[in-house]
Amino acid sequence: MLIYCAIRYYGKILVFIKVGAFLQFMASSLDVKKLNNKQLEELASDIREQIVQTVSKNGGHLSANLGMVDSTIALHKVFDFAKDKLIFDVGHQCYTHKILSGRNDDFKTIRLDDGLSGFPDINESVYDAFSVGHAGTSISAGLGYCTARDKLNEDYTVVCVVGDGSFSNGLNLEAIVSSNNKPKNFIVILNDNGMSISKNKNGFYRMLSKSTTKRGYVGSKKLIRRIFGNSFVTKGLAKFRDFIKRVINKSDYFESFGFKYVGVVDGNDIKDMVTILERVKFVAKEKAVLLHIKTKKGKGLKEAEERADAYHGVGVDFKVDNGNFALSLGEKLNSLIEKDNRIVAITAGMASGTGLSLVEEKNPKNFIDVGIAEEYAVTLASGMALGGLKPVVAIYSTFLQRAYDQILHDVCNQNLPIVFCIDRAGLVGQDGKTHQGVFDISYLSHLPNIKVLAPNTTDELGDFIEYALSLNSPVAIRYPKNSKIEQELIRLNENTLWSVVKKGDKVNILAVGPNMLNIAKECADSFDGVGVISVRSIKPMCEKTLESIKDSAIVVLEENSEIGGFGSMVSTYYANKNQNVRLKIMGVKDKFIRHGLIDTQMKDNDLSKESLEKEISKYLI
Amino acid sequence: MLIYCAIRYYGKILVFIKVGAFLQFMASSLDVKKLNNKQLEELASDIREQIVQTVSKNGGHLSANLGMVDSTIALHKVFDFAKDKLIFDVGHQCYTHKILSGRNDDFKTIRLDDGLSGFPDINESVYDAFSVGHAGTSISAGLGYCTARDKLNEDYTVVCVVGDGSFSNGLNLEAIVSSNNKPKNFIVILNDNGMSISKNKNGFYRMLSKSTTKRGYVGSKKLIRRIFGNSFVTKGLAKFRDFIKRVINKSDYFESFGFKYVGVVDGNDIKDMVTILERVKFVAKEKAVLLHIKTKKGKGLKEAEERADAYHGVGVDFKVDNGNFALSLGEKLNSLIEKDNRIVAITAGMASGTGLSLVEEKNPKNFIDVGIAEEYAVTLASGMALGGLKPVVAIYSTFLQRAYDQILHDVCNQNLPIVFCIDRAGLVGQDGKTHQGVFDISYLSHLPNIKVLAPNTTDELGDFIEYALSLNSPVAIRYPKNSKIEQELIRLNENTLWSVVKKGDKVNILAVGPNMLNIAKECADSFDGVGVISVRSIKPMCEKTLESIKDSAIVVLEENSEIGGFGSMVSTYYANKNQNVRLKIMGVKDKFIRHGLIDTQMKDNDLSKESLEKEISKYLI
Repeated sequence: MLIYCAIRYYGKILVFIKVGAFLQFMASSLDVKKLNNKQLEELASDIREQIVQTVSKNGGHLSANLGMVDSTIALHKVFDFAKDKLIFDVGHQCYTHKILSGRNDDFKTIRLDDGLSGFPDINESVYDAFSVGHAGTSISAGLGYCTARDKLNEDYTVVCVVGDGSFSNGLNLEAIVSSNNKPKNFIVILNDNGMSISKNKNGFYRMLSKSTTKRGYVGSKKLIRRIFGNSFVTKGLAKFRDFIKRVINKSDYFESFGFKYVGVVDGNDIKDMVTILERVKFVAKEKAVLLHIKTKKGKGLKEAEERADAYHGVGVDFKVDNGNFALSLGEKLNSLIEKDNRIVAITAGMASGTGLSLVEEKNPKNFIDVGIAEEYAVTLASGMALGGLKPVVAIYSTFLQRAYDQILHDVCNQNLPIVFCIDRAGLVGQDGKTHQGVFDISYLSHLPNIKVLAPNTTDELGDFIEYALSLNSPVAIRYPKNSKIEQELIRLNENTLWSVVKKGDKVNILAVGPNMLNIAKECADSFDGVGVISVRSIKPMCEKTLESIKDSAIVVLEENSEIGGFGSMVSTYYANKNQNVRLKIMGVKDKFIRHGLIDTQMKDNDLSKESLEKEISKYLI
Repeated sequence: MLIYCAIRYYGKILVFIKVGAFLQFMASSLDVKKLNNKQLEELASDIREQIVQTVSKNGGHLSANLGMVDSTIALHKVFDFAKDKLIFDVGHQCYTHKILSGRNDDFKTIRLDDGLSGFPDINESVYDAFSVGHAGTSISAGLGYCTARDKLNEDYTVVCVVGDGSFSNGLNLEAIVSSNNKPKNFIVILNDNGMSISKNKNGFYRMLSKSTTKRGYVGSKKLIRRIFGNSFVTKGLAKFRDFIKRVINKSDYFESFGFKYVGVVDGNDIKDMVTILERVKFVAKEKAVLLHIKTKKGKGLKEAEERADAYHGVGVDFKVDNGNFALSLGEKLNSLIEKDNRIVAITAGMASGTGLSLVEEKNPKNFIDVGIAEEYAVTLASGMALGGLKPVVAIYSTFLQRAYDQILHDVCNQNLPIVFCIDRAGLVGQDGKTHQGVFDISYLSHLPNIKVLAPNTTDELGDFIEYALSLNSPVAIRYPKNSKIEQELIRLNENTLWSVVKKGDKVNILAVGPNMLNIAKECADSFDGVGVISVRSIKPMCEKTLESIKDSAIVVLEENSEIGGFGSMVSTYYANKNQNVRLKIMGVKDKFIRHGLIDTQMKDNDLSKESLEKEISKYLI
C-alpha cells in the first residue's frame, strides 16, 4: 500500500505530509483551479493515499477509483461542476470527485451508516448530477441534461465518464445511436481501463482498440501536439477539423453518431489531461466530443495494479468475500456439468461474485460471460434453451432488474427451462440504494410459468439447482451473499416445498431466506407456542402448510418489498379462500434503503429479532 | 387494394385465380422449392392478395407483411425451416412465413379466437423458432441457437430478420457488439424499409444508408454480378473476400463485430433474393453474414405503399382506431404545453398509438420520438427532469416492461417528476400473449416514490395529468385503449383518490379502470346492497374508503395479474391492520393470455359481468 511505501521511503513521507495538509483546504471544486501542475500531482498522490486508507477501513471500490484520480483532478481543474454536470456511469469511480467537491472531511465515513454514499447521489451534494449504481445510464442521462439545458437556454457543459465495460451496455448504445447530431457542450469520456469483461471477444472493444494496436499507442504529449499544434486557436477550428480527421482513427464511426472522436489519451497524466480537456471543452462548443482515454486500474497501489479484478470491490482490509452461496454455486455447477454437458453457466460481468469463475476455470466451454449486458444474457439463454441446452443464468438481484422484460417475454412466455441463480437478494449493506436486492420477489412472482425458490443453506442451493434442472420450465433461485444456517437437507420436490422447522400452536412464522430464518428461529426459541416454517418455495406456495396453520396467527418475514412480495401472496391466498386469518407481513418498507450495515438496514425496516418479538408478543397476550 | 385492381384489370384476375388455386397446395415449406422464378412471383402476388383480404376481415399488420412477401418466399426457397431457424424480430412481419409453413388453410383465422396468432409462436408450429412480439430479441435469440447448435454438434443455419426500426434497439445492439467473432451459419437480414422511426436523425440509419446515398443505389442484379461474378465458386472464397471488401461499404463496421456485410439488395425482387440468399448461405459456412436488404412497406397495395404508417397495424376494413384516451392525451398535452413550455412529451416509436402525434404536429419542439428504445426514453427523461423539464413519457403497458430498471433506478430512486402515460393497459385482444398490458400494476406498485393512477374517462386522464405535473415525484397513469364510461369529473387530489359511485351495505366492488368499472356498475344495478367504488389511485390507496367498507364484503376487480396487483395490496392492507374482511380478488389469472376478442379474454379470466355476479351472489345469500 502507498502508506507502507511511504514509511519505507523517508523522502516520500514529506510529500505526503505536505500534500495531506494541503488537502485539508480542498473544501470545494474551485480550489483545484488554483493549483499548478506540480501541486496537482501532489494532490493526486495525496488523494490516492486517502482512498487506500479509507477503503482499507471501510471497504469499497478500489481499483477503479485509483485509476480515475488523475483524470478526475483534471476534470475539476477544467470544469466547474457546481454548474457543469459530471455524470458517472455505474458510479463506483466517484471517490476523487467526492473528495474534490466539498466532501473531503466526510470521506472517512464513506459507505458507513449515516456516512457518504459509495456512489454519486443527488441528495448528497449538488456536485452529484445523477444518482447511479447500475451500468449504462450515463449517456442517456447526459443527453437528457443537454435537452433540458438547450430548451431552457442555460449554459453549462455535460460530461459523462463511462468505463469500457459499461460503454457497450445496451442502454448506452441506444443513446449513442439515437441521433447523428449530438448536442454541443456534450463530452463523453470513454475510460478504457481494460475492464471490458471479455475484452478479447467484445467487438466494440476490438474496434476501439484498433487505434492503439494498429498504429501504435500514441503518447498523449505527442498526441496533443499532433492534434492541436502550438497555435491551435489561431489556426481556427476548420483546420483543426481537417487535421483531426487525418490523425484520429475511428473518427468515422463516431462521426456517424454525431461525435468528434479524440483519443487515445493517457488518463493518468494530469498535465496532459488538463491540456486536452481544455481543448476538448473548446471544441465541444461546436460539436459533441467523444474523448477516449486509457487509465490504469489500481494505479499507485502495486497489488491493485497487478490484480485489478481482485481489488475491484473489497471489504475491510482489502478482503474479498464473495459469500458461501457463490462458492457453492460454482462447485455444484462443475459437478453437474460433469454429468450433463448441456448445462451452460452464463453471467453478465459477475463471474467472481456469483461463483461462476469456478466454472470458467474448470469448464470454460460451459461458461459464458457476456459482460455488462444482462438483457442479452437472458435472451441469449432463451435461444440456447430452445436449441437444447440447459442455461443457468447467474446475475445479482439488483442487476437482473434490467432483464425483467426478457425474463417475461423471452423466457416465461415460452416456458423455457432456464435456471436463474440470483445472488445478493435481500438487503446488501454498504452498496446502498441502487444495489438492494429487495424487489426480485415482486418483479418475478407475477410472471406466469416461473417458479421462485429461496434456499437457506448451500446444500439447499445445490439441491434446488438439481430440482430446477429436472423441470422443463423457468426457475428463479434467490439467496443472499451468505447463510449462517446449519446444513440440514430435505430434498425439494412438489411435496416438500416448505419445511416445518417447528410447529407453533399460537403463532407460526413464515420465514423467507436464511437471514429471516435465523431471526425466526432465535425468536421461536424464546417463546412457547411459536413455530417456524422455512419457506423454500415462494412460488408455488405450499397450500397444505398454509391450510394447516390458518388457525394460528401467522407472521411473514421476508427481505423483499412489502408490496408485491411473498406476504402479499399469502394474504391473497387466504382472502380468496375466504379464510380470515390473523396475518402480519413484515417486509422491506416502501422506500429506498440507504447504505450502511445490514444490521442497521434490518432494524430500520423492522426486520430485526426485536421487531419480530414485539409483533409476536401481540399475538401471545 | 390488390383485389380491386384485379377487378379493374381482367388479365390480372386470371393470374389470381390460377395462383389462388396453386396456393392451395402450398401445404408446407418444401413445396416452394419446386417452383421456378415465374411461379414464385405468381405465388407472391397470390399471397399478397390473401394477406390483404384476410387483414381487411381480421385486422392485423399490413404494411410490414406486404413488404416482406418476396423475401420470405426467397427464404423458404433457399432454406428448410423445419431444420433451419427463422427468427423474426418483433414478429409482425411473419404472415407469409405462416402461409408457407403449413398454415395456409388456417390463415383466415389469424388473430381470431382459437385461430392462428398474429405473431410467431413456438407452440403453434415447429416452423416458428421463437415466440415474439417485442422488438430487439432476434439477434440474441439467434446467437443462443447457434451456441446450442455448435455445442451439440448439430447442423442448421440460423436466420434472423430484423427491421431497421428495431435493429438499433439496445438488446440487438448488445448482441451485435457482444463479440468480434460471430458463429458460422448465422445470417442476420437487416430489412431496411424506412421505418426507423426518426430515420433522419438515427445515427445507425445514417451510417447504413451511406452505402446507398453516397455511391448510388446498387441495383441487386448488378450487385450480384459485382459481388459474386459468374464463377464465384470456382474463384474461391479468398478472392471473394477481397472482392467484397472493395465493393461493399461499411463492411469495416460489421467486420469489427464478426459479420461479413452484404448489401444493399432489393428485397422485393424474389429472383435476385434467391440468388443472393443461396450465395449468402454458402458464404455463411465460413463467416456470419449481415445481409442488408431494402423492401417497400405495403408493397402491392397502393394505399399502403403511400401511407405505410397508417397501414402499419389496422383493424377490420383497414380502419385505424387508436382509442379515445390517446386522442385525449395528445390534445391535453398540447393545451398544457401552451401554458408551460417545460413539458416535453416522449415516446418510443408509438407516436400515433399514444396520441403523441398530435403533439408532434402542433408542438414539435416539445416532442421526442426516440424510436424503439424504451430504456433510452426513460433515462433520457430522467436527465431532462434533473435539468428542469417536465417529461411525459407515453409508452404502451407491455413495452414499458423493457424499461422496468430505468423506472426503478433512474426515476424512482431519484424521485424525479416524470409522468408515465401507459396506454393499452389491461387485456388488449388480438395482439395476444406478448402484448397484454396485465403486468404494469405488479411491476410498478412496489417501486418506492411512484404513484400509480387509473383514470376511467378521458376527462379524468386530463385531470390526472395536470395533477401529476403539479407534483414533484414520479406518477404512472395507466389506461386501456378506450373507455365507455360517461364523463363526470371529480378532480383528483389527496382527498379524492377514489370515487364512491354507489355505496353498498352488503358488498362493495373496488373497480380498477373503465372496463372493470363498467362491469361493476352493470352488476350493482342488478343487486340491492352492492356498491361500486372507482379506484382511481392504485398507489396510494384511499385508506379512508378502505376503512369505511371493511364491514361489507369486498370484491376487487382489476385487469392485471392477480399476483402483485391491486387486490394483493388491498389484502395486505387489511392483513396488516389485523382486520378480518371478506375479500375476493378478481384479476387476470397467472398465465399468458392468448389473442382473441377482449370479451373472450375477459370471460376466460372470470372478469365478465357473469363471473362478477356469481361472486357477488355468494355474499348476498
